[in-house]
Amino acid sequence: MSHESRGDIAPSVEETAADIASMEIRGAATIADAAAAALAEQATFSTAETPEAFRVELEAAARELYETRPTAVSLPNALRYVLRGMGGETVDQRRRSIIRRAETFRRDLEQAQETLGRVGANRLRDGDTVMTHCHSTDALACVEAAVSDGKHIEAIVKETRPRQQGHITASDLRELGVPVTLVVDNAARRYLDDTDHVLVGADSIAADGSVINKIGTSGLAVNARERGVPMMVAAQSIKLHPDTMTGHTVEIEMRDEREVLEDGSYSEITGDDSRGDDGFIVENPAFDVTPPRHVDAIVTEHGQYPPESIVMLMRDLFGETTSDPWE
Amino acid sequence: MSHESRGDIAPSVEETAADIASMEIRGAATIADAAAAALAEQATFSTAETPEAFRVELEAAARELYETRPTAVSLPNALRYVLRGMGGETVDQRRRSIIRRAETFRRDLEQAQETLGRVGANRLRDGDTVMTHCHSTDALACVEAAVSDGKHIEAIVKETRPRQQGHITASDLRELGVPVTLVVDNAARRYLDDTDHVLVGADSIAADGSVINKIGTSGLAVNARERGVPMMVAAQSIKLHPDTMTGHTVEIEMRDEREVLEDGSYSEITGDDSRGDDGFIVENPAFDVTPPRHVDAIVTEHGQYPPESIVMLMRDLFGETTSDPWE
Amino acid sequence: MSHESRGDIAPSVEETAADIASMEIRGAATIADAAAAALAEQATFSTAETPEAFRVELEAAARELYETRPTAVSLPNALRYVLRGMGGETVDQRRRSIIRRAETFRRDLEQAQETLGRVGANRLRDGDTVMTHCHSTDALACVEAAVSDGKHIEAIVKETRPRQQGHITASDLRELGVPVTLVVDNAARRYLDDTDHVLVGADSIAADGSVINKIGTSGLAVNARERGVPMMVAAQSIKLHPDTMTGHTVEIEMRDEREVLEDGSYSEITGDDSRGDDGFIVENPAFDVTPPRHVDAIVTEHGQYPPESIVMLMRDLFGETTSDPWE
Amino acid sequence: MSHESRGDIAPSVEETAADIASMEIRGAATIADAAAAALAEQATFSTAETPEAFRVELEAAARELYETRPTAVSLPNALRYVLRGMGGETVDQRRRSIIRRAETFRRDLEQAQETLGRVGANRLRDGDTVMTHCHSTDALACVEAAVSDGKHIEAIVKETRPRQQGHITASDLRELGVPVTLVVDNAARRYLDDTDHVLVGADSIAADGSVINKIGTSGLAVNARERGVPMMVAAQSIKLHPDTMTGHTVEIEMRDEREVLEDGSYSEITGDDSRGDDGFIVENPAFDVTPPRHVDAIVTEHGQYPPESIVMLMRDLFGETTSDPWE
Amino acid sequence: MSHESRGDIAPSVEETAADIASMEIRGAATIADAAAAALAEQATFSTAETPEAFRVELEAAARELYETRPTAVSLPNALRYVLRGMGGETVDQRRRSIIRRAETFRRDLEQAQETLGRVGANRLRDGDTVMTHCHSTDALACVEAAVSDGKHIEAIVKETRPRQQGHITASDLRELGVPVTLVVDNAARRYLDDTDHVLVGADSIAADGSVINKIGTSGLAVNARERGVPMMVAAQSIKLHPDTMTGHTVEIEMRDEREVLEDGSYSEITGDDSRGDDGFIVENPAFDVTPPRHVDAIVTEHGQYPPESIVMLMRDLFGETTSDPWE
Amino acid sequence: MSHESRGDIAPSVEETAADIASMEIRGAATIADAAAAALAEQATFSTAETPEAFRVELEAAARELYETRPTAVSLPNALRYVLRGMGGETVDQRRRSIIRRAETFRRDLEQAQETLGRVGANRLRDGDTVMTHCHSTDALACVEAAVSDGKHIEAIVKETRPRQQGHITASDLRELGVPVTLVVDNAARRYLDDTDHVLVGADSIAADGSVINKIGTSGLAVNARERGVPMMVAAQSIKLHPDTMTGHTVEIEMRDEREVLEDGSYSEITGDDSRGDDGFIVENPAFDVTPPRHVDAIVTEHGQYPPESIVMLMRDLFGETTSDPWE
Repeated sequence: MSHESRGDIAPSVEETAADIASMEIRGAATIADAAAAALAEQATFSTAETPEAFRVELEAAARELYETRPTAVSLPNALRYVLRGMGGETVDQRRRSIIRRAETFRRDLEQAQETLGRVGANRLRDGDTVMTHCHSTDALACVEAAVSDGKHIEAIVKETRPRQQGHITASDLRELGVPVTLVVDNAARRYLDDTDHVLVGADSIAADGSVINKIGTSGLAVNARERGVPMMVAAQSIKLHPDTMTGHTVEIEMRDEREVLEDGSYSEITGDDSRGDDGFIVENPAFDVTPPRHVDAIVTEHGQYPPESIVMLMRDLFGETTSDPWE
Repeated sequence: MSHESRGDIAPSVEETAADIASMEIRGAATIADAAAAALAEQATFSTAETPEAFRVELEAAARELYETRPTAVSLPNALRYVLRGMGGETVDQRRRSIIRRAETFRRDLEQAQETLGRVGANRLRDGDTVMTHCHSTDALACVEAAVSDGKHIEAIVKETRPRQQGHITASDLRELGVPVTLVVDNAARRYLDDTDHVLVGADSIAADGSVINKIGTSGLAVNARERGVPMMVAAQSIKLHPDTMTGHTVEIEMRDEREVLEDGSYSEITGDDSRGDDGFIVENPAFDVTPPRHVDAIVTEHGQYPPESIVMLMRDLFGETTSDPWE
Repeated sequence: MSHESRGDIAPSVEETAADIASMEIRGAATIADAAAAALAEQATFSTAETPEAFRVELEAAARELYETRPTAVSLPNALRYVLRGMGGETVDQRRRSIIRRAETFRRDLEQAQETLGRVGANRLRDGDTVMTHCHSTDALACVEAAVSDGKHIEAIVKETRPRQQGHITASDLRELGVPVTLVVDNAARRYLDDTDHVLVGADSIAADGSVINKIGTSGLAVNARERGVPMMVAAQSIKLHPDTMTGHTVEIEMRDEREVLEDGSYSEITGDDSRGDDGFIVENPAFDVTPPRHVDAIVTEHGQYPPESIVMLMRDLFGETTSDPWE
Repeated sequence: MSHESRGDIAPSVEETAADIASMEIRGAATIADAAAAALAEQATFSTAETPEAFRVELEAAARELYETRPTAVSLPNALRYVLRGMGGETVDQRRRSIIRRAETFRRDLEQAQETLGRVGANRLRDGDTVMTHCHSTDALACVEAAVSDGKHIEAIVKETRPRQQGHITASDLRELGVPVTLVVDNAARRYLDDTDHVLVGADSIAADGSVINKIGTSGLAVNARERGVPMMVAAQSIKLHPDTMTGHTVEIEMRDEREVLEDGSYSEITGDDSRGDDGFIVENPAFDVTPPRHVDAIVTEHGQYPPESIVMLMRDLFGETTSDPWE
Repeated sequence: MSHESRGDIAPSVEETAADIASMEIRGAATIADAAAAALAEQATFSTAETPEAFRVELEAAARELYETRPTAVSLPNALRYVLRGMGGETVDQRRRSIIRRAETFRRDLEQAQETLGRVGANRLRDGDTVMTHCHSTDALACVEAAVSDGKHIEAIVKETRPRQQGHITASDLRELGVPVTLVVDNAARRYLDDTDHVLVGADSIAADGSVINKIGTSGLAVNARERGVPMMVAAQSIKLHPDTMTGHTVEIEMRDEREVLEDGSYSEITGDDSRGDDGFIVENPAFDVTPPRHVDAIVTEHGQYPPESIVMLMRDLFGETTSDPWE
Repeated sequence: MSHESRGDIAPSVEETAADIASMEIRGAATIADAAAAALAEQATFSTAETPEAFRVELEAAARELYETRPTAVSLPNALRYVLRGMGGETVDQRRRSIIRRAETFRRDLEQAQETLGRVGANRLRDGDTVMTHCHSTDALACVEAAVSDGKHIEAIVKETRPRQQGHITASDLRELGVPVTLVVDNAARRYLDDTDHVLVGADSIAADGSVINKIGTSGLAVNARERGVPMMVAAQSIKLHPDTMTGHTVEIEMRDEREVLEDGSYSEITGDDSRGDDGFIVENPAFDVTPPRHVDAIVTEHGQYPPESIVMLMRDLFGETTSDPWE
């Protein structure tokens, strides 16, 4: 099948794989959407002559897509979700089932953040104060939905060193009309007394209910539990980390020390700008892991879940991981 | 009694009071030392003719000194300690007792940090790693004594936003030859797994065993307990807060928001430098309060104490607070 | 279709809706049973000519029933359960599927308390002592089943202010031959040392595993955990609160202050019956919320569940809530 | 020595002993005051001719007083405090020392509640809300002092079954101008979210730091810790239980079941007034024991103490208990 | 159908039942495998003439097998799993479905430990130290898989009184090339500071997430939580205890006191070998129960699960237990 | 001064030092008694001509005694206690004061265990069950005193691997008529449900309130707290570890691996007696450290103390450690 014959409707698997690999396509949702579209495209123009050949072709396509970014959480989730929908006993039935499944996935994905936001908003009551850490559009969607329901919400925003994404969060919340108090991360425990909910997003969520998120989340969660403040994590289901179902741990990225030292404060404070080879080491891990016992609810577009049962949602949506065509 | 007649040996109570008031004399130890010296000076040159007149005169001197800086923790401690030593039934006996008591206080004070350092060092074993928060010479004295005992000590240094005093701590530790890893405050919980002791100083210590220290200490202490890492506070006994014996709470200073925003990161990150009257609020408390149940030991120059018994040391050294001449 | 033609077999949707609205039909199980019966009735006499028209008609009936008492937990559960069973591609197939599903629901409902009682009884061992709070026929069913298995069970019954339903529980248990010790609510912690299980019912159960029950349950649960006594909640699955799947919190009813003051004790004790406008406020919340970490097991007619996984049973039985015809 | 010769200044030991035994003298402070006065009276009119004879006479007096009410906590404290002050090497010196010591004790006792109130008030900040349990004049003294300092204090008052002393507390607080919200005991945990301090008195305090107080205190303390609300106990030092220094446990009184059933609610609710021999048992313990780890501060007229160090105040004031003349 | 006619391919239900009863077939996996095979055999040679007769025959076979060892956890799991696969509307369809289902079960079972081992290995990182209790081939499979992935794993092995199975574990680990440190059970808490994972097997796992395992497991788990060390339980899904779904508790076997006293240490230490009728009692329970809140993950051949959601895997695999043919 | 001239009344400092060094004098109480006696002997026969010379001589004697066994906890305590009693301004006054002080110390020491036993017994109520770990005569003294008060006490005795001193405890308790149940250490948590007090002795007690005792104590204490069972430590005051006041940690002795392997169980169980160079390591620490927050009371002959205030008793009895003549 030549590329031209497809009428330029959608990029092929090859094109999509290339774009993911080159980072032209990036961001969890965008990658997931493109991967599902590519599988639908493959199904649409498949020339397989037997149902089994069709399956083999689709699985090969999935494998090709998967291998472009094996660490992207949303990619295998999209692929698994679509392939699991393959049904029927003829090529045509299978083709139609794949196309329909991909459409469902993409439509759900498009609405996921808004749906999730409405779920999260339902946990917030008029007059509540939330404390945020880092910047998460999923978390912000919850506040936005609450505000649009007419609830008055206030926010205590941790600046979130080293990259101070709290400033972005503060700015976004201000645009929603939410009164914001910005505090340094060290001040979090003190302000937990004025907080009704800790509200964070997630980089990914593991099958054991652990939440992988921006460094500092786990320490905040321990203090929230000690102070009796509930901790809520907003995360679309594409953030559910497939490899963790088989026990894999999530590798924590170590980032550049310049993020920590960038503001030149060292030499200003110490009057010493000779820091060199004999100086101290800077370690700058990007994320940490919050165990499920310190989290009260994970809010997804499929409703809220205690972290201990999120593995069942992972299985419902994406199946067991041992049957992956790329394994 | 004229000033001249004293032979310029030491400043009078009036001079000392003026210097404390003008902040020429500042720092907990310096204030305490000067106050004790001034009482000794008053006793030396007293012209009181009866023992009772002598007592009245000394108490008036104490009151005058106290009122220059009623919030300085070390000042009433010094005054109480010296006055409690007044003994004997003649003016001369009382004079001598006051002078001797002041000498004891000043000599102990001079050696306090070194003595305390040796006590703290005894808690550290060869090969241990300490985690520090903020900058405290009392805490550093513990590490220094351990290093001079030939122990290999490593340090994980929290940068300690907003004023990044961790950089000073890192620099001081490096000079002691201690390998230093600098981390942002948010990374503390992750590095607690590699930590044998959390080691901090104190701004002051309350009679209920609470530790008032740089903002962020209490959140660190909660995480240290949760991780099973012992928490040790190094503080000379002049840091024991006298007013708290009678239930007074310690007022927490709110500092300028520019400490939080000084590095201009806001506009750089958000591309918005319009933050003005309608922007968010910054709250910047200087200290927080760590309850005694999250502290394992308070290290003083009189040995180590569980925080729950520090009130008895306060009483032993400084007496009950209700008999103060200034009350 | 006229009402007469149905041969008076069962009330129509309209009649059932009216009876629920007028509280002639009330109680969680009775409402659920009537709603399922009404849907079956609607299906039986439907004159829809297409499968789609049949669906539209049934969904309209469900919506009509739902709107009579939107806060009754069991009503939407019954409607969802029955509608989810609609299958087949002809009107007749769909009709039959709905009728069969409604029958299953009603039969299960009838046996639910007894089944649940047997499950709960299996947790109780011969010689165990249970502590009860408030009055719950689900909880009593567990004790009854244990007793009928020949186990000797004793009970410590909290009187359960303000309405003292503990007296009803005590009376019911006495009829089962269970030795009862009645204590005031304040004495609960002391008697936890003699208790093998805390056993309570539930007003409703949230998707995050929280248990909404008579005020005082959550404080008892905290003490039970601190004392190492397991906490078991007996609740039929119709108590699973559907709205909480989408994050909705449960509104806690505030009841009349006369429930608190009804026994005239105020004036008797204080010799003052002038309490009037300038007097104190009485707050009398009916329920509280026990978080899942303080509950050991939720006992339902589908077996026992840790509270953290009850959301999966909710989904299995009633589906996701976002597809409700009334939304 | 005849009674007449004492000029009717004060009752003799015999008279005081008789009055304590007959309950004419009762209440912890009144008993303590009378016992100290009686010892002073004995010292004043002693005809002992040797210092040793004087000691023997005073100890015999103490023993006689002690044996009238061996379970009254304040009685042995008063006796020990006075006898410990015996000094000097002549009868006259000893006489004077005892009289002076008794005066000190009585004067301190008279001022104790007010002093204690000021200490406790210092822990309360303007705008704070306290939660009370039962009725305690020591606890009320703290609120009164805070209010007279111009602080706005609000109160959540637990009714405190079975005897509803919360109504007296509510009434007293209302007279101080404190806004009061009355709740049933079961509602305590819910209202802890609105509470800044739990504030209770004590029946007595044990050497291991445990607080013996009205039944329900310990369950409240567990919940306060879980919610992060500090727990403060107001108790004059005469409440420190001397026997507990030697490990004795405090016997908990079981009170009449009619306190629980007095309001006739049983028959009203169950429609059954046949409760008789075959009915249930009511257990009605008067007090419970709160372990020190659930208490944040004990407020006394000698300042505030962590519960774990109160034993040292006991020793300072009353000495070791093994040298009691009555043992 | 005569036995001969089956061509000796596999034992009949009768033979299998006899062999299980006589303990010739024993061990959880062996029993489960044999039971599934026997059902397949029954299906293969069934002479039932109607689908309903076929079902009745198979259920009778299951009942016969079940009753040989009703306390063996894996036996009802195998029977339920196979029977749940019965499908189709003809005898032949049903026959084929049963045979296929039995094959699936047996194939999965054969691979379960290896699959589980790979899941568990994924939780272990290069350089980790595990602490083991008792001897479990499931737990060892995790270490073996990690080692074969090239990870360096070390082990602290508790000797595990009374039967010292730790020695077997130590020996097995040594064969895998894992450096082993053997400690007495009392030393466990001390060595938790050097431990990255506690890793144990399970005798069975209850529906409430509790882990029934060798005595000592629960005490270790409490200490692991207190020290912040994650606790991982390796258990094939046939260990999921079916009766616990309906609330049944697991009976804990009491073993012979000679296991405790076997090494003659009593008389050696005390110099007294007269222990007889008047001597002390020895209690020797074989297992204990670890509640789910002290367990971090259960590793099965279907992936890892928080203990609180394991009940959903039980339902997925084995269905609800109330429909068992033997009940 | 020749030895003969002393009339053989008591051994000289030299003789005592030699006997301590050669272990002829051993055991905490015996060493302490001998050291106090030796100081009295030195004072008795001192030929010092000035008070200062007397002091120098006594301090030299103390130093000589101390250096024989610097790790024996009771030795410096005895020396400090006696030397602190030196008073007066003449040689003779000082001599008499030392002799009297030594007598007091020795008399108190002789009665300490019995006094302590009575204190501990007061914590035990009729019908209580204690759980013991290892063997401690101080702990047994508490049970003995309770039994002699007519209380019925039962005991659960942990065998206490590796040296099984629980057998000695069981034997001793049996002689007291106490019913004993012996369990392996692993069974402790299960039997905590039947336990009213955990009762152990101490090897030594640190100034931060930590209890150093036989390995296994700390793990038991964590479980006792989790189960709500109070933990009581019986220890004479000579066990208070002086060096820990200045922060010194207590070195934990590692004992021979043969204590762990002595019963030959390894080869019996594994059928392998080739354990040799390539075998596993055995680590056998003698003691562990229980932090004060897991201990409820320390019972001494001076009464009971929360562990957090034991440092004040150390100071009262033995003074600050920085003034030691041997430092």
